[in-house]
Amino acid sequence: MDMSGYHLTSELARLALSSRPELHAEAERAARFGLIDYLASGFYARDDAGVAKLWRIVEAEGGSADVPVVGQGRKASFLKAALLNGFIGHALDFDDVHSDVRGHPSTVLLPALLSAAALNRLSGERFLAAYAVGVEVMARLGRTIGSAHYEKGWHNTYTLGVIAAAVAVGYLLGLSQERLEKAIGFAATQSSGMRIQFGTEAKPLHAGLAAQAALLSVKLAEEDFGGTRQGLDGDIGFFGLYGDLAAAEERLLTDWGSDWSIVQPGLWFKIYPFCSAAHHAADAALRLYQSGAFRTEEVDRVHVIFPPKGDAALIERNAATGEQGRFSVEYVVALALCGYPLTLEHFTNRPIEPGLLEFMPKIERRYDGAIEPAAHAVPKGRFTIVEVVTKNGDTYRERIDCPRGAPGNALTLDDLQAKLLASARNDQARVERLVETIMNMKTEDDMQSLLALI
Amino acid sequence: MDMSGYHLTSELARLALSSRPELHAEAERAARFGLIDYLASGFYARDDAGVAKLWRIVEAEGGSADVPVVGQGRKASFLKAALLNGFIGHALDFDDVHSDVRGHPSTVLLPALLSAAALNRLSGERFLAAYAVGVEVMARLGRTIGSAHYEKGWHNTYTLGVIAAAVAVGYLLGLSQERLEKAIGFAATQSSGMRIQFGTEAKPLHAGLAAQAALLSVKLAEEDFGGTRQGLDGDIGFFGLYGDLAAAEERLLTDWGSDWSIVQPGLWFKIYPFCSAAHHAADAALRLYQSGAFRTEEVDRVHVIFPPKGDAALIERNAATGEQGRFSVEYVVALALCGYPLTLEHFTNRPIEPGLLEFMPKIERRYDGAIEPAAHAVPKGRFTIVEVVTKNGDTYRERIDCPRGAPGNALTLDDLQAKLLASARNDQARVERLVETIMNMKTEDDMQSLLALI
Repeated sequence: MDMSGYHLTSELARLALSSRPELHAEAERAARFGLIDYLASGFYARDDAGVAKLWRIVEAEGGSADVPVVGQGRKASFLKAALLNGFIGHALDFDDVHSDVRGHPSTVLLPALLSAAALNRLSGERFLAAYAVGVEVMARLGRTIGSAHYEKGWHNTYTLGVIAAAVAVGYLLGLSQERLEKAIGFAATQSSGMRIQFGTEAKPLHAGLAAQAALLSVKLAEEDFGGTRQGLDGDIGFFGLYGDLAAAEERLLTDWGSDWSIVQPGLWFKIYPFCSAAHHAADAALRLYQSGAFRTEEVDRVHVIFPPKGDAALIERNAATGEQGRFSVEYVVALALCGYPLTLEHFTNRPIEPGLLEFMPKIERRYDGAIEPAAHAVPKGRFTIVEVVTKNGDTYRERIDCPRGAPGNALTLDDLQAKLLASARNDQARVERLVETIMNMKTEDDMQSLLALI
Repeated sequence: MDMSGYHLTSELARLALSSRPELHAEAERAARFGLIDYLASGFYARDDAGVAKLWRIVEAEGGSADVPVVGQGRKASFLKAALLNGFIGHALDFDDVHSDVRGHPSTVLLPALLSAAALNRLSGERFLAAYAVGVEVMARLGRTIGSAHYEKGWHNTYTLGVIAAAVAVGYLLGLSQERLEKAIGFAATQSSGMRIQFGTEAKPLHAGLAAQAALLSVKLAEEDFGGTRQGLDGDIGFFGLYGDLAAAEERLLTDWGSDWSIVQPGLWFKIYPFCSAAHHAADAALRLYQSGAFRTEEVDRVHVIFPPKGDAALIERNAATGEQGRFSVEYVVALALCGYPLTLEHFTNRPIEPGLLEFMPKIERRYDGAIEPAAHAVPKGRFTIVEVVTKNGDTYRERIDCPRGAPGNALTLDDLQAKLLASARNDQARVERLVETIMNMKTEDDMQSLLALI
């Protein structure tokens, strides 16, 4: 396989189309888990204020009501349903992440795939396979694009998600290789999304915009609209412009199919409704609080110690609302050390309580490049240490390398079912039917059953 | 005015909203000219194959038929009309460019503004003012973002157009400053578009995508959707990510309102239907051919001499179709030296004729950084020299610094009216009504008359 020159786009398309992840039981099972978790994240956001705002815009445009919108009991056009379903899945930042992606795969991939599945008769098996292919592409894009991409300010969920979702939908619909190459180019040329939007409703909107743009890309390819077949290649292609072309040429497509990124390292399902970069600190702070070794009012100061740049996603140092608090390690640690549960009602658009605002300045971020990350660390190279110093000088430390929910410390099907049940207002019957449908879906009828249940 | 720190977005919003370009007769007149030229470019593309493909996608989504689509006798939803009108205006690359923008302002700005005007009762005067404000923003973004932005591979028409069009529409609708700041952020986070798509239908699609994203940005702001108010600011904001933050802080907003970029340097209306970077060479080659000093078959070789990087937009060195030939100086010069008129029928999706394909290898691009650009050069620093060497060793040279249609060598109203007439299949009555409406439009009724005529 000649990987020099202009072959990234064509090889990616060829390998994606030749994939058979459904032959790997673990990949298929992981896809079923991811679907449950995505729906739970979406159901939780049912009454989110942003959803209502988006509906008003969608209504102003009008359009065919073809595709169900998660948890809304309503349908929208294939593009607008993808916009809504992407936003809804990510609205509370309660949806999965993937450490290779450094972002959120399922809330881009599944909305795009659901729209495509609603407009065509496709099997449940193929749907799950397309989802696994999408995760594979997004993980490989993430591994290859380099950490500088994220650190410069890009939001990988959008920049990489749009391309991965276009490949996933192209796979689902069985595009020709040539058309899939063009779809990749249309997606790449719509790749955007800035991290400066973190902490606002625009962040989850990015997921919806990526899903919508991916669907449009495939639709353009289906219409044989003209576009480059080399969107990822060369100095002015996607990698040259957004990342590291040499790394992509070397590593984007190596060992395709030997294992699946949806399994290895796998999706990270969240037990807390905030940015995963704060989950290590949350686990550590909860352990410290639950140890009973000190009382909240005895705390003099708290050090939260990261590897250098390990807190890049945690952009809020002075959160004022719970929503901003999703990106504030200070807020999360304050909640835990003040004895609050880390549940959804503390991460809404309401102002942070005065007691917590008073506590937060005790918390200081530190960075230590000399500490060796653990071999099982998730993401690779990451850890967080929370160190409480009491007024009488005692010090208590907890270090977390792999938080609950992360691969290696994964949620079980029971855990996921519990998350879905809580998200579905404890509608046991509905949740049981959903989980059964998802865990067994294979045929075209199964696919339609799922669409009728969401 | 404190320009340090995070004030770019807020100051841009404030200055834009306080603008009164309608007080400057020249700015208003330039806006009227730009509107005529945009419609001519759109009418020419009436039967373009890409338009039909986009219609099929728009029909698949459905939606309210609220906004007229140029030259189509049909309406589409406000977002989809912007997509179509952006594509249509730029489909043939016959629309205006602006040297500060290094791209195409009107085919992004006017589609977005037409959609907003069709959904609201707004005066023609305000419409023209909003257009002038949009050109101003896009020109300033272009001057500030730095040439590296374009050279790295971005397509300014899309990356800058989406932000400028959001400001223009926000101005048209009279958004509050806070909401306009947010609209700028929503637009900036959708800023994309790669030059690798040049020479394909995706290039004009970029204009439509930018217009559509700009309208969505304003709509989100109107719904008070959450987003950053500092999208242009800081290291991870728009300028930090796509360009040069220091240059933006120093120069983006200086001397606002002292003159208008729609006048100075002004829009460049094209007399040829191909990339403006080849217009200098086209004028030079036509002069050489028309001089009668040599016959085509006597030409041994041709040197086309640019300043370094002066041909960056001309990405096709081996064009195979007329469409690719829009970005091929070899094709354009070959046409002229072989005695063909530089008219639309030579820039379609059909294969290039064998005789021209044989001639094109005689043409060699050269670069000379030692040649002094002329003071009146458009764009600044640009020139092109075409040098014909005949088989018996004679050499003929023509140098063009400011081609026909460029500011300083501008088209008159008669020229524009002739372009519109040709584009409108010589429907004299319709063209006269259109030109009269545009040259006099002021009231809400005038605005509605225009919408009914396009």
